[in-house]
Amino acid sequence: MEHPDCMYCNKNDKLRSLMIEVGELPYSTLYLFRDQRHRGRCVLAFRGRHVDEMYRLTEEERNGFFADAARVQQAIANLVHPGKMNCGIFGDTMKHVHMHICPKEVGGLDWGGFFTNTGEPGLLSEAEYQELVAALKGQLGI
Amino acid sequence: MEHPDCMYCNKNDKLRSLMIEVGELPYSTLYLFRDQRHRGRCVLAFRGRHVDEMYRLTEEERNGFFADAARVQQAIANLVHPGKMNCGIFGDTMKHVHMHICPKEVGGLDWGGFFTNTGEPGLLSEAEYQELVAALKGQLGI
Repeated sequence: MEHPDCMYCNKNDKLRSLMIEVGELPYSTLYLFRDQRHRGRCVLAFRGRHVDEMYRLTEEERNGFFADAARVQQAIANLVHPGKMNCGIFGDTMKHVHMHICPKEVGGLDWGGFFTNTGEPGLLSEAEYQELVAALKGQLGI
Repeated sequence: MEHPDCMYCNKNDKLRSLMIEVGELPYSTLYLFRDQRHRGRCVLAFRGRHVDEMYRLTEEERNGFFADAARVQQAIANLVHPGKMNCGIFGDTMKHVHMHICPKEVGGLDWGGFFTNTGEPGLLSEAEYQELVAALKGQLGI
């Protein structure tokens, strides 16, 4: 069941202003986050129905979603070799289950602290985005 | 295999200064975070061996850990009825897989933003901590 006001359900202009679709995994849709201050940062959105909290996923959905998440994290790690992978499920005002996946560079931006969305976004050219999308698809085999 | 420098492996004084052990779940140990600015905030640490990234867990470990996480989030939600549950796996400098679980109140601290560890911690009395620990154990049946 989709939620009419949810950008992850209806993939509206707001979603497209924030992220670029990379492709579908069995239980999720992967997006490249347009703010690439952390190179490789992505969003992985649960696919199939609108669920507001990860603890409300069924066991099958939860296992599938976190299997997709692990696969995506490995793919991003293969590309950018981070000092540490960070991830979080927040969504106070956008409750559809989605995970921010943020690779951190040792000693780089936010190292040892929390990644956020405050400050100037690190935007790339469309060609640079498409290069990253293609690299992710290649790593994931999708 | 434990890591000698890891506070989640050796449960040292540093760990005890930050959190209070609630109990063990099948794949994890649950801690109440001493900073209770977000009432109910906990840390869930993977148990059994030292693993630095969630994508390096085996399928069985991953399914078990996130089943524990969902169970804990439901227990915290039953106690504090948050507007949204937040969670994240960070650990740039403390790499043992552990999830921060942070219930948010609608319109309360950090609502719509990222929860952090900056600023003054919200410390409680030992009696208040023990009351929360007991309530969590009761919800979890442990």
